[in-house]
Amino acid sequence: MEFPNIPKGTRDFSSIEMSKRNYLIQVIREKFELFGFYPIETPSFENISTLVGKYGEEGDYLMFKLLHSGNVLKKLSNKALRYDLTVPFVRYVVMHKNEIVFPFKRYQIQPVWRADKPQKGRFREFYQCDADIVSSYGSLWEEIELIQLCDEIFTKLNFPIIIYINHRDILGGLVEISGIKNNLWKDFTTSLDKWNKIGRDLVKKEMLRKGISSQSFEKIAFFFDMKENFSKKEKHLTVAFQYSKKGKKGIKDLSFIYKNIRRISLQNTKLEWNISLARGMNYYTGTILEIVPFHNLISIGGGGRYDQLANLFGMKNVSGVGVSLGLDRIYLAMEKKNLFQTIPSKVLFINFGDEEVLYAYKMINFLRKKGISTQLYPHTVKIGKQFRYANDNNIPFTISIGKNEIKRNKIRVKNLKERTEKEYDNINDIVNQLI
Amino acid sequence: MEFPNIPKGTRDFSSIEMSKRNYLIQVIREKFELFGFYPIETPSFENISTLVGKYGEEGDYLMFKLLHSGNVLKKLSNKALRYDLTVPFVRYVVMHKNEIVFPFKRYQIQPVWRADKPQKGRFREFYQCDADIVSSYGSLWEEIELIQLCDEIFTKLNFPIIIYINHRDILGGLVEISGIKNNLWKDFTTSLDKWNKIGRDLVKKEMLRKGISSQSFEKIAFFFDMKENFSKKEKHLTVAFQYSKKGKKGIKDLSFIYKNIRRISLQNTKLEWNISLARGMNYYTGTILEIVPFHNLISIGGGGRYDQLANLFGMKNVSGVGVSLGLDRIYLAMEKKNLFQTIPSKVLFINFGDEEVLYAYKMINFLRKKGISTQLYPHTVKIGKQFRYANDNNIPFTISIGKNEIKRNKIRVKNLKERTEKEYDNINDIVNQLI
Repeated sequence: MEFPNIPKGTRDFSSIEMSKRNYLIQVIREKFELFGFYPIETPSFENISTLVGKYGEEGDYLMFKLLHSGNVLKKLSNKALRYDLTVPFVRYVVMHKNEIVFPFKRYQIQPVWRADKPQKGRFREFYQCDADIVSSYGSLWEEIELIQLCDEIFTKLNFPIIIYINHRDILGGLVEISGIKNNLWKDFTTSLDKWNKIGRDLVKKEMLRKGISSQSFEKIAFFFDMKENFSKKEKHLTVAFQYSKKGKKGIKDLSFIYKNIRRISLQNTKLEWNISLARGMNYYTGTILEIVPFHNLISIGGGGRYDQLANLFGMKNVSGVGVSLGLDRIYLAMEKKNLFQTIPSKVLFINFGDEEVLYAYKMINFLRKKGISTQLYPHTVKIGKQFRYANDNNIPFTISIGKNEIKRNKIRVKNLKERTEKEYDNINDIVNQLI
Repeated sequence: MEFPNIPKGTRDFSSIEMSKRNYLIQVIREKFELFGFYPIETPSFENISTLVGKYGEEGDYLMFKLLHSGNVLKKLSNKALRYDLTVPFVRYVVMHKNEIVFPFKRYQIQPVWRADKPQKGRFREFYQCDADIVSSYGSLWEEIELIQLCDEIFTKLNFPIIIYINHRDILGGLVEISGIKNNLWKDFTTSLDKWNKIGRDLVKKEMLRKGISSQSFEKIAFFFDMKENFSKKEKHLTVAFQYSKKGKKGIKDLSFIYKNIRRISLQNTKLEWNISLARGMNYYTGTILEIVPFHNLISIGGGGRYDQLANLFGMKNVSGVGVSLGLDRIYLAMEKKNLFQTIPSKVLFINFGDEEVLYAYKMINFLRKKGISTQLYPHTVKIGKQFRYANDNNIPFTISIGKNEIKRNKIRVKNLKERTEKEYDNINDIVNQLI
């Protein structure tokens, strides 16, 4: 008999952890709906043809594929667990385009799976919380709404964030003026994305190895290190992009977003232009966003605009933009800062025997009708053991009605935190202190 | 380019469907917590060794197995998607026994997967909502609490149910007095479970084919057809079980549950002893329950007591009992009876251009602060198109602030259902009619 275990990279969640996770989901859901996003869900697994080729080579490799039941070797698999929520969402839009009202604003809170090497803070099963807008032509007000939405969520969570913003066309413009060849575009963005993690020198080394010339690198490296404010960056890049149509478009989009966000104002969030932000997913084409906690570099979410994704499913002229929040990363960061509260069950009825329980049961029903979480200890065991159960589960009140109390028509209530005990005549008199 | 599709037996859920599903989950969760059950979650996939052999031969065959990434043929798979929530829960209890406070009351609301033949109302991915109690010795008050819990949930859903109850020891007693051999026990229960679906004659045919004698069958068939009330059934069986210790134990347990339920009383639920109820899962050992809607035979949930399951993971002296509600079956049954309401987004702000939106945005923020779900149409397109969007999404109010309104300091509000329009001076004056 092997001691039971779970697959590596997966987790069990205890009641205390689940209460906190449910609280997070509830806040995120509430704010998504406040901004007019509607919930949808898609299956846990998709046809493999839907998923392959959307996440780059690594993504294809890290996908969890399902084995056929029955004759497994005949054809190993044609299904895989979803890798993110964006591709299944776009598949949804294409499949249901005739029922959908555009612009289509949906949110989705579901797990995704990656056969990644498990390590601290990285799991093989984790939850994403996505809000996206899909329409036949994009509008930068969509980006502004999404930034407002994140501000609203993290303000409610009492958890200040920085949103880093950049634009794929600005990176495109920089590639243009640097002379880097088009076929090195993916190599360039993949390496650049590591700028904040591994630093300028290692990024340079990696780029040179991939065939980018030192001259090209030095022509644009200056911009990735700029510490100045938005206007200064804008001014410098406007000069640099004098002959780059692409670069100009990127600058124009970001300026629009910045100008309007400044006038509408954010509550708790800092918006910061990070020119080295590139984002891994291949499908981003416009604005890109990354969300990090204040005083911390770990990404807890991201997003951006993807204009070509629906093309891959044969649907033209569709622009999508969205944010994706990582529930598990947010959880870990908030846990570290002690930002959660938990709410336990309120009352435990001590079990003195069948007749006593039966007598007490109408009071149990009464408290539940009032919405007060009420438990009956299921066995007639030693009182000490029953009180220990209340204590270990952080249940603040016990109610004892033994033979003696029944005879005297009394209800004995113990407050376990204050270690006080009091007798009441009527269950009605207790309700207020329990709520 | 293939038109995108999803694997058979799986489903996309639209916003309207999700609103209803979320409502169901919210009610079930709330009532679980009201009764002092705490949430936990387990991973979507488990080690295969955890799952095999717990559900019978069919279960092993219908499990979705995961393919190794990398060198797939070396070792095909050591993981599978969970098949139900009970086995992973017991695995959880055994793995975490040192942190858990017993009796352990947990609930779990998660999807499960079966590679079953898809058909009407049967899916390959579906949600179960389980509440279980695990302790070192069982108490029949646990069964009573679970029945009360179901009554509370379905009363709140305004959806009256029948709970069929039976006891494995009663079936054991019947097998004893009929002379059916012990090694035919599984064949007997599997066939008996179809009594209500396919009827006495077909069940008999199946049993004879499996080696049960006609004489044995006729000795006990009378009990499965009994239409009398609890006391009459009890009286008949007590006589029949004169020499069956097992049978007597079953009767005693059911009598205790019946007697106390009658005195505590249920709100909307009918409890009915169904002697032909057997339940498919191998792990049940005591009371068994099945939940069906009034005037309908489709099972929407079930449960029972399992005393040996933890044994399979090397943990002795553990008794578990629980109910499992099928979210998808409840959904379908309630949909058929039109028992859902949906709540859409409340307000759409018409988009007249960037300056107008910017002017209106402080009102959008104000309404959201009041908790009113408020959307901005993201593009400056023809007004008619924007109103159609509100209409198609069942958004009841639109707010229009164009150049003219800005100049006159007015806010134009349209009630799309009543087809009325009114002007206001202050956003504060609108709040009350929007809530």
